Amino acid sequence: MASSSEVIADTNNNNNNVTFWQRFVAKMVGVMLQLKKPAQDDPRRLIHSFKVALSITTVSAFYFVKYLFVCFDKNPMWIIITVILVSEFSVGATLAKCFNRGLATVLASALGLGCYYLVDSIMGGHIVGSVFLGTLIFVIVATMTYMRFVPQIKAKYDYGFLVFILTFCIVSLPSYRDEDLLDIAKRRVITIFTGVLMWILVSIIVYPIWAGEDLHNLVSKNLQKLGDSIQGFGDECFGTSEGEGSNKSNLQAYKSVLNSKQIEESLANFARWEPCHGPFRYGHPWKQYLKIGILLRQCACLIDSLTGFLDSTKTPSEIKNKVQETCIQISKETGKSLKELSVSIQKTIPPCAANPSIQKSKIVAMNLKSILKSGLWEGTNLFEDIPIMTVTYLLLDVVSCTQKIAESVHELSVQAKFKNKDSKVAPNYPNSPPHDLGVHHVITIN
Amino acid sequence: MASSSEVIADTNNNNNNVTFWQRFVAKMVGVMLQLKKPAQDDPRRLIHSFKVALSITTVSAFYFVKYLFVCFDKNPMWIIITVILVSEFSVGATLAKCFNRGLATVLASALGLGCYYLVDSIMGGHIVGSVFLGTLIFVIVATMTYMRFVPQIKAKYDYGFLVFILTFCIVSLPSYRDEDLLDIAKRRVITIFTGVLMWILVSIIVYPIWAGEDLHNLVSKNLQKLGDSIQGFGDECFGTSEGEGSNKSNLQAYKSVLNSKQIEESLANFARWEPCHGPFRYGHPWKQYLKIGILLRQCACLIDSLTGFLDSTKTPSEIKNKVQETCIQISKETGKSLKELSVSIQKTIPPCAANPSIQKSKIVAMNLKSILKSGLWEGTNLFEDIPIMTVTYLLLDVVSCTQKIAESVHELSVQAKFKNKDSKVAPNYPNSPPHDLGVHHVITIN
Repeated sequence: MASSSEVIADTNNNNNNVTFWQRFVAKMVGVMLQLKKPAQDDPRRLIHSFKVALSITTVSAFYFVKYLFVCFDKNPMWIIITVILVSEFSVGATLAKCFNRGLATVLASALGLGCYYLVDSIMGGHIVGSVFLGTLIFVIVATMTYMRFVPQIKAKYDYGFLVFILTFCIVSLPSYRDEDLLDIAKRRVITIFTGVLMWILVSIIVYPIWAGEDLHNLVSKNLQKLGDSIQGFGDECFGTSEGEGSNKSNLQAYKSVLNSKQIEESLANFARWEPCHGPFRYGHPWKQYLKIGILLRQCACLIDSLTGFLDSTKTPSEIKNKVQETCIQISKETGKSLKELSVSIQKTIPPCAANPSIQKSKIVAMNLKSILKSGLWEGTNLFEDIPIMTVTYLLLDVVSCTQKIAESVHELSVQAKFKNKDSKVAPNYPNSPPHDLGVHHVITIN
Repeated sequence: MASSSEVIADTNNNNNNVTFWQRFVAKMVGVMLQLKKPAQDDPRRLIHSFKVALSITTVSAFYFVKYLFVCFDKNPMWIIITVILVSEFSVGATLAKCFNRGLATVLASALGLGCYYLVDSIMGGHIVGSVFLGTLIFVIVATMTYMRFVPQIKAKYDYGFLVFILTFCIVSLPSYRDEDLLDIAKRRVITIFTGVLMWILVSIIVYPIWAGEDLHNLVSKNLQKLGDSIQGFGDECFGTSEGEGSNKSNLQAYKSVLNSKQIEESLANFARWEPCHGPFRYGHPWKQYLKIGILLRQCACLIDSLTGFLDSTKTPSEIKNKVQETCIQISKETGKSLKELSVSIQKTIPPCAANPSIQKSKIVAMNLKSILKSGLWEGTNLFEDIPIMTVTYLLLDVVSCTQKIAESVHELSVQAKFKNKDSKVAPNYPNSPPHDLGVHHVITIN
């Protein structure tokens, strides 16, 4: 009995081992597959990794080459640490971080020096000096840590305040142990500036990645997604079932737009630091992208409410048959105009090309309104038709939201001075200046 | 002429100076006022600042006390740097960061040591050695930087990977210059562990700030906000105008719920690191809070769509008069039940107390449906009444969303084993076990 139970225990053990190793291998394979994804989503990540590796290997030369090693007082480690810490993905994020690190280092070093001379000249004894320096550190650290909670500081200078605390401690404390303070401060400033300069050069010269370009593309892609979603909704709710699989995934595209606020704001924050690049001049209206983003999220929220009615509007009814055609047309034209706005941002051309679709969607919306105004409901089961009526009403809201988006995109094109590069795409209103488009021709619904 | 223009220029200059200084002073006053706000919003921020200052001043003792200074080979700076870098606001965030920093330091030090012995034993010459070490650094930095883009790693181990790169460079590079590698690695591990231990102790012992508690309170507060918003909407759309000012601000309360995803996820991420505290045992169902959060955002999206109809439902109409009473009741009862759910989470008691309101709101919703089903619309101007019909329909959606939220909160109370502390608040169903509540009694709408 004992031996048989031992055998069972042994088998169990083996099984457990196998399961453990199988699980381990399965997990490893899963991890490997996940490792491929970031590069597939955005190949620039691979390039960024090589850029960081390249610049760190290059600054390693401060150790490998004896002359350089001696130049930096045999302690070039902070150059390497700085490069590792400021190597951000985009040029804008890099410049913001470098500015923070550089300014904070200079200011904190100066303050550290000041404290040293104060402690050294006024206080003589070691105990009085240590109490004074301790109190000073306490006050400065408490103040700086507290100030990092102020929203405006947290958004832009959080890293600077952290580096300030760090540098102040690094410079002021060793002075107490009679190390050469001026030397420490000087070395720290020089090493950090060397590191910062190194990464800024690599970041801008070797395949630069621009936060501004990312923001531009993100807003354009979000417009495209909303266009897909609204067209997907029209097909799903009213339309034919052809190609339903692809439509289903299209319909869900709007969901990522709902949560895009944070990424848009941080990209706009970084974009302001970037020099001119590509079609973006200095002073490009980055804030206008945030305004468009707010409207896009409003539109996404409407689409979210619309999709909530998909199930309750599946059954065919008399009223549904009557509005079906017009609703499909609305979702088609609105989707088309959103996509055309997306293309106009993508190509940095004025959004004239989008106007025909917007005009069409307005006309179709007026048609829908007149259908709704006609004695459509007489003798029908009204309660069951409330969902379909709600859907038509929300669709009208989507049309007016799209108009606002079009105006906002137009404003962007004026502020950023988008120009028609392709002579074939002539503006629709040859006799009026481009900034008249879409502003005076708006027919408001509601 | 020349002198008069000089005078003008001078005056202009003076004016400019005055404006500059006035602007400067105004700006400074503004900044001072903004400095008060973080502490007013959350007084724990002030406490956190003092905690950080206290622990950094304490570790300064490694410089002030000669015995301690000698103990750490006259270089205790990394203890201070570590405390500054890991001093996060909540215990969970601290433990997550300390785990990352500690593990990465040990692993990278070990790898650095391995590389050193490889370079030292196999490669003899300086040039071959430097090429080998350079290649190794390139490969490791590129791999680690790339891996930080994997979403799962970015969410939990981003800081660990950064510290790994940093430590590997700090340990492996000086070895090339014949410094004592083992000593560097040992010193780095000891200093970092001392710093980490220091902050963990202060963080847990001196007025601990728990991410879990924050998540718990955030979800409870968001429930409260949605309750306020839906009641505010009912008053604004259908109700009396008394106390309109306060209702307006109530109505907007839901907006912050829409953007709460990121903060909830990071708090849940940190909460898992925290030991038992207050009513939260080890293994508290933090993920359930995220599920409730998703439902809350759905509900907020519905309220957002509802507020879009405020303007178009202002004019009184026959239909509005007929549904007015019921709609006010729905918004009142739904708001009340959301607030009662909020209280039940806040007090960690089972959400029995919320059931009466939910039952009432269900009954009122049925009433509304029967009103809608009756021949209410005969002979009215249907087109103008579409908005009010849409509003009633969306309100029914809010009721069913509230039911889902109630079920989810109930599930949380079962998983977290909430108990009735107050004997006066007896469960409504004394003969059935608590996990039967709200699950089998749901009357689904739609």
